Amino acid sequence: MGDTLSDQHAVAARLYRERGFQHRVGYGTRPALLNIDLARAGTRKGSPFECENVDEMLVHVARLLEAARAKGIPVVYTTTGYEKDLKDAEPWIRKIPALAMLQLDSELCQIDERVAPRPGEIVLPKKMASAFAGTHLASMLCALRVDTVIVTGTTASACVRHTVEDAISLGFRPIVPREAIGDRIPGAVEANLFDIDAKFGDVEPVEAVHRYLRELAPFTR
Amino acid sequence: MGDTLSDQHAVAARLYRERGFQHRVGYGTRPALLNIDLARAGTRKGSPFECENVDEMLVHVARLLEAARAKGIPVVYTTTGYEKDLKDAEPWIRKIPALAMLQLDSELCQIDERVAPRPGEIVLPKKMASAFAGTHLASMLCALRVDTVIVTGTTASACVRHTVEDAISLGFRPIVPREAIGDRIPGAVEANLFDIDAKFGDVEPVEAVHRYLRELAPFTR
Amino acid sequence: MGDTLSDQHAVAARLYRERGFQHRVGYGTRPALLNIDLARAGTRKGSPFECENVDEMLVHVARLLEAARAKGIPVVYTTTGYEKDLKDAEPWIRKIPALAMLQLDSELCQIDERVAPRPGEIVLPKKMASAFAGTHLASMLCALRVDTVIVTGTTASACVRHTVEDAISLGFRPIVPREAIGDRIPGAVEANLFDIDAKFGDVEPVEAVHRYLRELAPFTR
Amino acid sequence: MGDTLSDQHAVAARLYRERGFQHRVGYGTRPALLNIDLARAGTRKGSPFECENVDEMLVHVARLLEAARAKGIPVVYTTTGYEKDLKDAEPWIRKIPALAMLQLDSELCQIDERVAPRPGEIVLPKKMASAFAGTHLASMLCALRVDTVIVTGTTASACVRHTVEDAISLGFRPIVPREAIGDRIPGAVEANLFDIDAKFGDVEPVEAVHRYLRELAPFTR
Repeated sequence: MGDTLSDQHAVAARLYRERGFQHRVGYGTRPALLNIDLARAGTRKGSPFECENVDEMLVHVARLLEAARAKGIPVVYTTTGYEKDLKDAEPWIRKIPALAMLQLDSELCQIDERVAPRPGEIVLPKKMASAFAGTHLASMLCALRVDTVIVTGTTASACVRHTVEDAISLGFRPIVPREAIGDRIPGAVEANLFDIDAKFGDVEPVEAVHRYLRELAPFTR
Repeated sequence: MGDTLSDQHAVAARLYRERGFQHRVGYGTRPALLNIDLARAGTRKGSPFECENVDEMLVHVARLLEAARAKGIPVVYTTTGYEKDLKDAEPWIRKIPALAMLQLDSELCQIDERVAPRPGEIVLPKKMASAFAGTHLASMLCALRVDTVIVTGTTASACVRHTVEDAISLGFRPIVPREAIGDRIPGAVEANLFDIDAKFGDVEPVEAVHRYLRELAPFTR
Repeated sequence: MGDTLSDQHAVAARLYRERGFQHRVGYGTRPALLNIDLARAGTRKGSPFECENVDEMLVHVARLLEAARAKGIPVVYTTTGYEKDLKDAEPWIRKIPALAMLQLDSELCQIDERVAPRPGEIVLPKKMASAFAGTHLASMLCALRVDTVIVTGTTASACVRHTVEDAISLGFRPIVPREAIGDRIPGAVEANLFDIDAKFGDVEPVEAVHRYLRELAPFTR
Repeated sequence: MGDTLSDQHAVAARLYRERGFQHRVGYGTRPALLNIDLARAGTRKGSPFECENVDEMLVHVARLLEAARAKGIPVVYTTTGYEKDLKDAEPWIRKIPALAMLQLDSELCQIDERVAPRPGEIVLPKKMASAFAGTHLASMLCALRVDTVIVTGTTASACVRHTVEDAISLGFRPIVPREAIGDRIPGAVEANLFDIDAKFGDVEPVEAVHRYLRELAPFTR
């Protein structure tokens, strides 16, 4: 294949639009902010889980966090972590043996201090890629009558993507602020956000999401 | 970005291997065959859901079907379809208005006759991308003590990928026979199978999967 | 044990109230009406699934249906039914071999004509007791931003109870109109509604639920 | 109603047997032991969650634990507990305000020392009644190819019952050792185990379950 990714995406986007894909799922009125796997495993230099462009990504997440907190919308973080004997990592750990480093009480599983959770914000431990897999996230969002999930974090090709796919399957509208998403593989953010925008959620400039939050009425319980 | 997809994948594969990703999840001993969305919507010329290289893909699926049936392993098909008023398509239909064509009783939702289900093989209607989302598939496979799911069908960038991600999250080992997967977008099969093989399931030549089925002991209930 | 069920419930209710159980979950503002297994299997004379006091129960359900339709709230029916080879009934069918009679296309699985669904009302086939188990019900209610589920039907000791337990676990407020619930076993309605009211949902006189629906604003999409 | 519970159950059992209910789901070959909510909240005198006959129940659980550990079968405990702000307790806490006492890091949420978990045994925090609701339990059991769940603990009318109902819905065979189940309400154990045995799982003398474990081949990973 001699085409660049950008060439392919231009062809694909035309095809999608002609066929009735890639429309806007749209913003609802009761969002939650889901920060996926912004733990030190992905944000520290030299970790096997280290992502590209972390510093810049975290600036964008921090800005969204500030806007979300100003409106009192639910803020949830996830972190992937396991018990000592890794019984809860099967069978994923066969595919990714590096998961063995993610012991639940280790420093690698703590959220990066630049986007640290505040009291009352939930840090959800999870075992699999999606924030919804094996967690009470869907029930909690449903009980809070959330209709929209703004998803930030890492990685585009695994945890973020699976979370977005699950979110729309479970009845929520996913919004993905482009600059607030990371990955450890060159091109993975671009490739996966293209698929997400075509089929699962709206990929938006972080500025547009920030504006939405600024204009939103405060979240009532 | 001037790199081709192949260049990027070569870099990424090296990085993944160094860091402890992209290992083999491996074959188990009790597989099921999941044929995702091989309905006429995707296999007929001129449908908005039409995929590339359908004829060749179906030859490979048919060959796997024959081997699976010879061993009595569970065979499941999915088809995406909705009620007349599309209430069960929300909010996905906002993203993909073309879904409105997929009326449950329409011809578009019937499995292609070249890989037609036999009596006793389950055709599972679904509403979302993953075969597990809002269906009794996981419970049924668990009751049958299935440990491995061989996933064929369309599309690589949506229903197949989400099904594979869910499968490993739910405790099954996903195996993806490369030539038995389709998509409607150039490059989408390659890009998505790369991510799947790195993180979610083993992408294998169809010949290797066929050999596994030939050498397998008959499936006992 | 010489005590009657009523004696026991009086003791239990006092204990529950003293300890902080048996409060009101309360009505929300966006209800759905879930009619559980009002199929002919349970409403016809001589079926193994026949329930007590069916005629009276259906009068109450019909009255709630009328009020629900007047406000345009989502109406969902469930019916339990299986494929010919019963592969989808495992392992429940080991416990209840009578389930083998419930073939999906049989007359026994059709909703009783006295409370027949109208076009646009969803009849959800299910395999297990709960309306949420292996179905897209939770996603659909979440997408409709439903916060309250009014549950009618049969049986108190199985499908209704498990549906109510799941509903509150998934983030919805369950309301159970007492006279609209049936069972085939003497005392089972009383015993199970007692437990439900103590821990899972509000058991209310059907008249109170009817009044709630009359006073409700029309349901907006 | 002047009948005693026992009278009613005798009538009901006859009706159930005539109609094809109340059969045996049977023991499989790969069990797990699930100990539901044996935390101090339920086992300590004076707690609002205090159950009856705790001392005797824990002797039976301890004996099953010993037999399970001797065969290396997976042992899982659950404990119900919440974050400080109780956001994760909605809407259940409206029904049971006493849940507010169950702070995740409090002593009330720790497993009773008479049946304390050993290293490598998982203590699963949960938010709702069922051990499967919002947890990774089903995925973990599926990955371990468990086919049978032996359920002990409290309470018969809520967490144990909902766990058993979910277990069979998810494809597992539930076995309930009668003497290892507790509740805080007189009669609740008898009433709920009757329903469970009729429809959801096999209620067995603890001695029979112990014998099954003694005769079982060691659990292989």
